[in-house]
Amino acid sequence: MKFIKDFKPGDRVADIYMCKHKQSATTKNGKEYYSVTLQDKTGTVDAKIWEPGGAGIDEFDAPDCIDVFGEVTSFNGALQVNVKRARKCSEGEYDLSLYLPVSSKDNDEMFRQLLSIIDSIGNPYLKKLLQAFFVEDKAFIELFRKSSAAKTVHHGFIGGLLEHTLSVTKLCDYFCTAYPALKRDLLLTAAICHDIGKTKELSLFPVNDYTDEGQFLGHIVMGCEMVGEKARAIDGFPELLKQQLQHCILAHHGEFEYGSPKKPSIMEAVALNLADNTDAKMETFTELLQNVTEPGWQGFNKFFETNVYQTKID
Amino acid sequence: MKFIKDFKPGDRVADIYMCKHKQSATTKNGKEYYSVTLQDKTGTVDAKIWEPGGAGIDEFDAPDCIDVFGEVTSFNGALQVNVKRARKCSEGEYDLSLYLPVSSKDNDEMFRQLLSIIDSIGNPYLKKLLQAFFVEDKAFIELFRKSSAAKTVHHGFIGGLLEHTLSVTKLCDYFCTAYPALKRDLLLTAAICHDIGKTKELSLFPVNDYTDEGQFLGHIVMGCEMVGEKARAIDGFPELLKQQLQHCILAHHGEFEYGSPKKPSIMEAVALNLADNTDAKMETFTELLQNVTEPGWQGFNKFFETNVYQTKID
Amino acid sequence: MKFIKDFKPGDRVADIYMCKHKQSATTKNGKEYYSVTLQDKTGTVDAKIWEPGGAGIDEFDAPDCIDVFGEVTSFNGALQVNVKRARKCSEGEYDLSLYLPVSSKDNDEMFRQLLSIIDSIGNPYLKKLLQAFFVEDKAFIELFRKSSAAKTVHHGFIGGLLEHTLSVTKLCDYFCTAYPALKRDLLLTAAICHDIGKTKELSLFPVNDYTDEGQFLGHIVMGCEMVGEKARAIDGFPELLKQQLQHCILAHHGEFEYGSPKKPSIMEAVALNLADNTDAKMETFTELLQNVTEPGWQGFNKFFETNVYQTKID
Amino acid sequence: MKFIKDFKPGDRVADIYMCKHKQSATTKNGKEYYSVTLQDKTGTVDAKIWEPGGAGIDEFDAPDCIDVFGEVTSFNGALQVNVKRARKCSEGEYDLSLYLPVSSKDNDEMFRQLLSIIDSIGNPYLKKLLQAFFVEDKAFIELFRKSSAAKTVHHGFIGGLLEHTLSVTKLCDYFCTAYPALKRDLLLTAAICHDIGKTKELSLFPVNDYTDEGQFLGHIVMGCEMVGEKARAIDGFPELLKQQLQHCILAHHGEFEYGSPKKPSIMEAVALNLADNTDAKMETFTELLQNVTEPGWQGFNKFFETNVYQTKID
Amino acid sequence: MKFIKDFKPGDRVADIYMCKHKQSATTKNGKEYYSVTLQDKTGTVDAKIWEPGGAGIDEFDAPDCIDVFGEVTSFNGALQVNVKRARKCSEGEYDLSLYLPVSSKDNDEMFRQLLSIIDSIGNPYLKKLLQAFFVEDKAFIELFRKSSAAKTVHHGFIGGLLEHTLSVTKLCDYFCTAYPALKRDLLLTAAICHDIGKTKELSLFPVNDYTDEGQFLGHIVMGCEMVGEKARAIDGFPELLKQQLQHCILAHHGEFEYGSPKKPSIMEAVALNLADNTDAKMETFTELLQNVTEPGWQGFNKFFETNVYQTKID
Amino acid sequence: MKFIKDFKPGDRVADIYMCKHKQSATTKNGKEYYSVTLQDKTGTVDAKIWEPGGAGIDEFDAPDCIDVFGEVTSFNGALQVNVKRARKCSEGEYDLSLYLPVSSKDNDEMFRQLLSIIDSIGNPYLKKLLQAFFVEDKAFIELFRKSSAAKTVHHGFIGGLLEHTLSVTKLCDYFCTAYPALKRDLLLTAAICHDIGKTKELSLFPVNDYTDEGQFLGHIVMGCEMVGEKARAIDGFPELLKQQLQHCILAHHGEFEYGSPKKPSIMEAVALNLADNTDAKMETFTELLQNVTEPGWQGFNKFFETNVYQTKID
Repeated sequence: MKFIKDFKPGDRVADIYMCKHKQSATTKNGKEYYSVTLQDKTGTVDAKIWEPGGAGIDEFDAPDCIDVFGEVTSFNGALQVNVKRARKCSEGEYDLSLYLPVSSKDNDEMFRQLLSIIDSIGNPYLKKLLQAFFVEDKAFIELFRKSSAAKTVHHGFIGGLLEHTLSVTKLCDYFCTAYPALKRDLLLTAAICHDIGKTKELSLFPVNDYTDEGQFLGHIVMGCEMVGEKARAIDGFPELLKQQLQHCILAHHGEFEYGSPKKPSIMEAVALNLADNTDAKMETFTELLQNVTEPGWQGFNKFFETNVYQTKID
Repeated sequence: MKFIKDFKPGDRVADIYMCKHKQSATTKNGKEYYSVTLQDKTGTVDAKIWEPGGAGIDEFDAPDCIDVFGEVTSFNGALQVNVKRARKCSEGEYDLSLYLPVSSKDNDEMFRQLLSIIDSIGNPYLKKLLQAFFVEDKAFIELFRKSSAAKTVHHGFIGGLLEHTLSVTKLCDYFCTAYPALKRDLLLTAAICHDIGKTKELSLFPVNDYTDEGQFLGHIVMGCEMVGEKARAIDGFPELLKQQLQHCILAHHGEFEYGSPKKPSIMEAVALNLADNTDAKMETFTELLQNVTEPGWQGFNKFFETNVYQTKID
Repeated sequence: MKFIKDFKPGDRVADIYMCKHKQSATTKNGKEYYSVTLQDKTGTVDAKIWEPGGAGIDEFDAPDCIDVFGEVTSFNGALQVNVKRARKCSEGEYDLSLYLPVSSKDNDEMFRQLLSIIDSIGNPYLKKLLQAFFVEDKAFIELFRKSSAAKTVHHGFIGGLLEHTLSVTKLCDYFCTAYPALKRDLLLTAAICHDIGKTKELSLFPVNDYTDEGQFLGHIVMGCEMVGEKARAIDGFPELLKQQLQHCILAHHGEFEYGSPKKPSIMEAVALNLADNTDAKMETFTELLQNVTEPGWQGFNKFFETNVYQTKID
Repeated sequence: MKFIKDFKPGDRVADIYMCKHKQSATTKNGKEYYSVTLQDKTGTVDAKIWEPGGAGIDEFDAPDCIDVFGEVTSFNGALQVNVKRARKCSEGEYDLSLYLPVSSKDNDEMFRQLLSIIDSIGNPYLKKLLQAFFVEDKAFIELFRKSSAAKTVHHGFIGGLLEHTLSVTKLCDYFCTAYPALKRDLLLTAAICHDIGKTKELSLFPVNDYTDEGQFLGHIVMGCEMVGEKARAIDGFPELLKQQLQHCILAHHGEFEYGSPKKPSIMEAVALNLADNTDAKMETFTELLQNVTEPGWQGFNKFFETNVYQTKID
Repeated sequence: MKFIKDFKPGDRVADIYMCKHKQSATTKNGKEYYSVTLQDKTGTVDAKIWEPGGAGIDEFDAPDCIDVFGEVTSFNGALQVNVKRARKCSEGEYDLSLYLPVSSKDNDEMFRQLLSIIDSIGNPYLKKLLQAFFVEDKAFIELFRKSSAAKTVHHGFIGGLLEHTLSVTKLCDYFCTAYPALKRDLLLTAAICHDIGKTKELSLFPVNDYTDEGQFLGHIVMGCEMVGEKARAIDGFPELLKQQLQHCILAHHGEFEYGSPKKPSIMEAVALNLADNTDAKMETFTELLQNVTEPGWQGFNKFFETNVYQTKID
Repeated sequence: MKFIKDFKPGDRVADIYMCKHKQSATTKNGKEYYSVTLQDKTGTVDAKIWEPGGAGIDEFDAPDCIDVFGEVTSFNGALQVNVKRARKCSEGEYDLSLYLPVSSKDNDEMFRQLLSIIDSIGNPYLKKLLQAFFVEDKAFIELFRKSSAAKTVHHGFIGGLLEHTLSVTKLCDYFCTAYPALKRDLLLTAAICHDIGKTKELSLFPVNDYTDEGQFLGHIVMGCEMVGEKARAIDGFPELLKQQLQHCILAHHGEFEYGSPKKPSIMEAVALNLADNTDAKMETFTELLQNVTEPGWQGFNKFFETNVYQTKID
């Protein structure tokens, strides 16, 4: 398969791509055509269908995968695919992971590791709460495993939420060995649940955008409410334990200006905020280095607020 | 009755006061005694009971109202009551409003006005939601009407939450006439519910202090959750309407640094934030002026971040 | 009349528009032409006059209203009017309100309401001061009624200063009923005068831009000075009253970073700042909603510093 | 004369001091007495007059200079003068400079230097403006020469305003030689006038405190208005020149948060802000070093926001 | 031994304590005495020697350990030891660890672990650099192992610098397994060296205060310079490697406002900042919990900028 | 010579220009060509060499000066030189100052003034230190005299570092006469050395860009280290004097957020910061005014954070 990032003017196109967007339009001369965005995991490209009446053209829509036949041209300095023919593909014809960004780590393996950490929780109420989400709630599990952790920044791919959650949880587990004052059951439960609100804040791929609920309430408040509901459904769940767990979730961004309505008041909330922040920064820098084309200085980076550099040791 | 603010060294004390605090202690010579704090609506004063064995002395505790007989002395520059005798009073012997700060406005009248505004709401779901709190939920109503709106700042008295809520709601109603783009049903419902989380954030008088839940979650998140629960219990309550209402509550402090996890995204949320802020500042300045003893400049005020002055017009 | 916002490539143009800008230029081939900006109340469009010698072409200049004959074309993705003929119109041929943004409210009616509020002021000195501006000073009255309240943000139209002033004053009047500690005469006088410096800070339409004086001194200091001068001209005007009134004007932006050299020290100054801020935000959101083309999320808004949404209730 | 900073318990007091404050009070036993604060240029001390009826005791008040006979005692860890006799002195009996902080530089000489700089101004309008203040306005001159430049910080002594003004003006004169793009006439006029509002913002010694006008309006706005008035009184004073001069005064604090309603827009305003800031910091550090008792580290300094150190070079 | 934190009025004192401070003074009656501060690892207490001529009294000074005989009294609400006799002890009579705060972890064991990590470094230049400090430089090693990591905050005890360094280094080692993009040799070398400047910034116990050099230059710049010197002494040490290592040290506080002259530009610098911050916060909270006397809410904590709470799980 | 800023479409080009950048590229049709940037002291222009095989074309590279023959065309709204022939010039054929920005002041004269100030230093250690740099270290002197003081902002030209250093030093000398508490030897030495790290932070013209070392360490830390090394090489240089001098360099940006790891603790460090800031702002405004094409308002300026204006006095 020829990936979009390798397209050059003059190339023939004869492969399956995802249709990310399709809109009918009119030329200045009054002629109808379709403006389409094609996508694979390496990027997107504009495409035009100047003859909308052609076979199959009217049958597909975003986010179908379509078999495209056409030619790459250059228009106003940008590439454009002139689509001659297109056909909607049926599931099975293509490998979705070629068209959407996916975690490089094995989803099953990551989930297995998460379950094994849940198994290690000693406090019966916290364990029941985790099982209510990650063992019993099939709809939640499916959503959680597919979700990305962000729209644009770090972990913005399928499985990203699971990967980030597992990484933060392991970091917290390390903290528990290094700082014995931490209560492991509480901290690890909070780590596993800290971003579950993201399953509602962002819609799934290929859209991966903020939902209304996400914009109005945010994943912090939604996650806190989800934990509250599940806890209330568990007989005898201690009220104070629930509040401390919810507090960890509310405070996990660490500062008001990052959207936390409370600053961390207990040591576990401080630890969770540190682990979340660490994983975010390490993953962001890792993704940045993966996209380096020339070694050395990479210019100013908004997230790190300084010029960044690919470490050089020979 | 002689009020605490008028105590002078040498005064006889023979009246009923509230016992705010009672603790047994030991002098350097090993003698036991009680250290007590007495309170009325004008302030508090330290008191000592040097003969703990006396009649009635061991029978009362905070927050009982007690009939005190003793004398005012001065110790290290502060007043102290030397208590000779004390007796626990029974309800009916005293008027509680003499001992605790109470809104100067009539509680029944304020609540009647609130109910009449609820009556005027047209949207059936929002009206049902308000009735579920303010008509049907007796426990909530009792709490809501007694709560203060703050521990130390404005409206920190019994009935303060009701008074503040009514004032904000009326201000929002005025806004609706001045700015027709506002949706009155949504704005007034949000105004009435905006601080209901305070019924759980602060314990009732005479304690009037933050609860664990209040410190861990805060009234903004708790109020949002309370509204969510009641809405879910109403058949057919539109999901988007619920989210917009919850958003108004989450965003009513206006800025992240004031503890709102979201900034106002809809016009009603902006309006609610303005009304809440206005009532807070106007009431704070009003309370400040009520405590003025000398006209003119009152020195630096931390809330207003400047020197404040009692306006002079003759 | 065909409005500019409805222009499409290929359209004929044969209507009166305002000339906002006119400049002679030279093509690469050395040929002279005119570059012109046409304006009506719906927007602006570039225009070119390739044959400058034509009848009437040299006789008009900004800000004349001209009768244009030409054709709409598209150049580099933007619309452009190819002007064939143009003629300067005389007053009476056109309705100015079609070419400039004007308040949707009746100017006479608004001014009448303002005068009636002035009538209700009890303090003789403050009343005289207001009459000196709004009854006796004809030049000021003309300017005040035509001024906009801003170059780009809220109330940026003819009559905007009057509309904003009236709205803030009424809001302050409502505050006086809700918060009896406010001194109505002082607060309403300050509200009526708070932005009078804008009559000098911004030039009138169609220019509506900052004057030198406006940039060097700003409307806050200029308004304060205007009030000081008028007050000094009134026999016996109490010095302290003048200072408190000027203080309200100086402090009405509330914070140093918004250009107020003093923070509000008296309750009326606090109230004026709240009313001004409220009217600014409510009007800005109202204008924003008036320009909504698709309901729902409107994207990030710099003024409100968040994504904004058109409230949806069905 | 024995200075207050040298008082020790047991000392006899028999000298003239200034009475800064006098208040009658009552002991717990109901006996009347006077509480007095005595001051000389080295500090202040509390004093009590237990026998108010004594000769001369009732005849003096703040800020008289009085001849005191008494004894220094120690009360609660602080010194207190037990006054036996006191007598109001008449002018001529004492040297006021012993009782109030005074500039160490000669007032006449400084003023002469200022006048000679005024003489060097070439622009006739600016020169006339300066003469209107510093040559013709006798009341202003007297006030200006006596004023301090601050209540507590740098130059807080009689003649401080003149000393600071002269120092800033000379610094600006140096700038003009180093940076030829500066317009000397404008910059020096602005420098000479930049703090004239302080003659109204602070009352004279011995009070040296903010006036009502000073608190409501501030010396920046008052100085701007004073310059505006004098300029309007000069026939033909160019409007734009007046605005630029006023702008320099308004912007001389450099930042909104320091009370300037405008940031510097012209090079002269930038220069004036730098000179004012430089003189403030250099004088503050100089006064700090004058009060050093032990060399080396002086602890945290709020103004410089760090630990400060007396430079050591041997 | 009776520890200072257990002193009560009336107690006899007959033990060895460290003299932290000794100063001669004079009573109001002109009598000489000594004012002394005694210290053990649990705290400090004021002491007075009213008879300075006594045996041994004049022979000791801070920071000697002295054998004290006296009585605990209470003065103005604080404890005070009335010292009757005192004798300077010779080394060997006492166990220094009773008088100074010491890390609870074994110094030899910690240093052994650090050396073993150094052994694991693969890059020959970085390994040589570490050995130059931690194997060859005996004076440095002695200082490094005794130093505290702070004057007042976390790790402010003997061995604190070693404990903090080891903890940060292990955390970085964990990061290397979790985030493979990190260069372990560089990161661990930077972690081991990041605070070596503190050996010069703070003097050793019992003083443990900032040195002149520490205040003028700070441990960040001094540590950077120390690394630079050692690297220059190693033949062939790659210049770019040296710069990246120094950069990690300069940037390890993460933000300008925390005293880093550079923000982290390479992933290892980001990681080091995260590890340092994590260890600081976890240790601070751990020390805080160790000092808890009553469980639950601990009041407002300046470091964490919120009320803190001792986690409760039962 | 025809300067680049005067190029117009259609112009013939036949002069020597500096080649700032040269890169070979391929057209869409597969044809090779060179993309070149030409530079003189008035600006830069893009150029294309469509026939790379021509005489001399392959022989030059950046930063050679080349004799160009070609034609100015316009492409996509920007100028472009179509190069027909080009020839590498040898030194002596051209005057380098025509191609690179150079200080308008005489380099020899400025350096002579600097040496004469060094001569006036009384303290023998500081004088030796200055001589070690500015008299004995030929490599440093050559670098120092050629360096610019910045990549983009003020003094960004050959000789800029010398010009800025001299100006700051003279300003400090003036401060010493105005504020006698300043130690002249220390302040002037610090002023002369404050930016010497820039000789390593920026590469020389024509590149004038940040070096790796510059980005990793910054001129503040590098300058501090350079001074430390030279001082250590001088026998008997007092340690405390070295630290105070290094402190002045570290603190000369005044605030953490401007990259200083220490805030000024001694009066000389405060003075140096003020002088550096003053020269930066005055030179920036001067350069800004030199580039004014239309008098009056110059639009918003990011450095001064406000609209700026060319002062107008007639």
